[in-house]
Amino acid sequence: MRLCTIGIDVGGTNIKLGLVAPSGRIIARTNLITKSYARHPRHLINALVSAVRDLIRDNGKTAKDIAGIGIGLPGLIDVPQGIVIFMPNIPGWKNIPLRRIMERQLKIPVFLDNDVNVITLGEWKSGAGKGCANLVCITLGTGVGGGLILNNALYRGEGFVAGEIGHLPLNEDGPSCNCGGYACFERYVGNRILMQKAAQLFRDTSVRLPDVFARARRGDRRAIRFWQDAATHIGNALVGVINLLNPRMIIIGGGVANNFRFMGPTIRKVIRQRALKVQKKMVRVVRAELGDDAGILGAHILVKEAILGRKII
Amino acid sequence: MRLCTIGIDVGGTNIKLGLVAPSGRIIARTNLITKSYARHPRHLINALVSAVRDLIRDNGKTAKDIAGIGIGLPGLIDVPQGIVIFMPNIPGWKNIPLRRIMERQLKIPVFLDNDVNVITLGEWKSGAGKGCANLVCITLGTGVGGGLILNNALYRGEGFVAGEIGHLPLNEDGPSCNCGGYACFERYVGNRILMQKAAQLFRDTSVRLPDVFARARRGDRRAIRFWQDAATHIGNALVGVINLLNPRMIIIGGGVANNFRFMGPTIRKVIRQRALKVQKKMVRVVRAELGDDAGILGAHILVKEAILGRKII
Repeated sequence: MRLCTIGIDVGGTNIKLGLVAPSGRIIARTNLITKSYARHPRHLINALVSAVRDLIRDNGKTAKDIAGIGIGLPGLIDVPQGIVIFMPNIPGWKNIPLRRIMERQLKIPVFLDNDVNVITLGEWKSGAGKGCANLVCITLGTGVGGGLILNNALYRGEGFVAGEIGHLPLNEDGPSCNCGGYACFERYVGNRILMQKAAQLFRDTSVRLPDVFARARRGDRRAIRFWQDAATHIGNALVGVINLLNPRMIIIGGGVANNFRFMGPTIRKVIRQRALKVQKKMVRVVRAELGDDAGILGAHILVKEAILGRKII
Repeated sequence: MRLCTIGIDVGGTNIKLGLVAPSGRIIARTNLITKSYARHPRHLINALVSAVRDLIRDNGKTAKDIAGIGIGLPGLIDVPQGIVIFMPNIPGWKNIPLRRIMERQLKIPVFLDNDVNVITLGEWKSGAGKGCANLVCITLGTGVGGGLILNNALYRGEGFVAGEIGHLPLNEDGPSCNCGGYACFERYVGNRILMQKAAQLFRDTSVRLPDVFARARRGDRRAIRFWQDAATHIGNALVGVINLLNPRMIIIGGGVANNFRFMGPTIRKVIRQRALKVQKKMVRVVRAELGDDAGILGAHILVKEAILGRKII
């Protein structure tokens, strides 16, 4: 593929757009504030179309220089149809045929997928998972997401919702989860829960997770222990995934993973203790490599793989 | 494929062999007692070769009428190489190149896989899972096994050991498992554990699981409750699999599944309570259809798919 792509990473707070060279380098970027366009899907779509047009024109390109636009969205996507079925954190998005609307206006092919699948594609082709046929990518944040590369392809499941590792039960009984279930993995390590636990531990409701990392870096034993406890839950969840899917690699991304060094050793210890012999011998647990660019770079891969016809869509 | 196949189902107790018509009908059968040939792998291999020769000759066929021999074995198999790496319950089997040895003697292509994968192939192509692109097959017995059909192909994992649903942790703490881990699903519903629980419940160490089914059929509330408790554990394990893999179907096989009616409703209730909305709406939980023939019929499919080149191997 000798053309550029445009990668779009739609988040609940920011929307990042990037013009990506065929090599995978981000040539130019622009940003939108999600809230500014949240009143109606039309507002957000118009803003995306304008931002794409500007990005193309400002960099001396035309629509013909762009192979496609990849978009990762935080919600439920009908991938083959290019329809946003639902986005829990952006109001009004129900069954919006985003691909068709944008293609009509821009005359450029558009490909959608959910944000975690897009990040997983990025880490697989350009990040920590290069050359790996079977891997699991998890993102730790307010929610806990997961993406699966199985037999050298993104596995989306029967209804495009596979990979929900955040809702793998960790126990047969436990605290209620927003999803309607209980004792879900996310209910132990989602950011809000971790912040509540930190507020209790340090008896300070204003404490934020970066503070707890800073304390751990300074050698505060309570803070170190706090991250080890979180890592134990993560390890327990991963044991199930490892025994079931026998992946070559687990890639851990998301904000919390920036401080992987406080959690990596404990995660690996739990896996050594609990996982099956063959499975644990061949799995590597690593942190994500693409960082804040994962969404844009993954969207680039989404376009590339779709156009090369590698059964991505 | 217009030729017959031979399907072989190697179990810890019995070995079943079947001559299978292209249509998938079993034309002739024969059996071996595993224990009789357990002294050395050579004894078992010789017995298999003789039994295959007899099966061919006694039914008026020659090697040229047989497209291939499929063998499901209870252990760890290197599928592309056709090597039995290890069988926990049949002594002496370590890195035995079974495919090469049998092909040399019989001049017929041989294909190996582990028993649960073979059963999963059978249920997918000829049983409860016909036409399904994404399904999970679990077998409840002394061990609890699992096989995964994902994106219309058997998913074997990085080291051919994917699908170990029996070692999905159900809790973060719990009883030790033979595998070296703890609180594994198998540790709650494996036959030996269920027998121990039944012995306690009925204060009778001679009670067997078929007795507990018979009691449940007669309306004994304790027995009904016993199966509902087992089904709750099964449901809890399946919630994790369903949320992670978003399958269209869960197929439950193995001895215990013969009394699916005492467990099916509770399994479905737990899934309704705990699984994610989209996932639970599209999944069906059914019992396996192939019964005792699953191993032979699955081995037939193993040969068929391999010869048709459908990426099975």
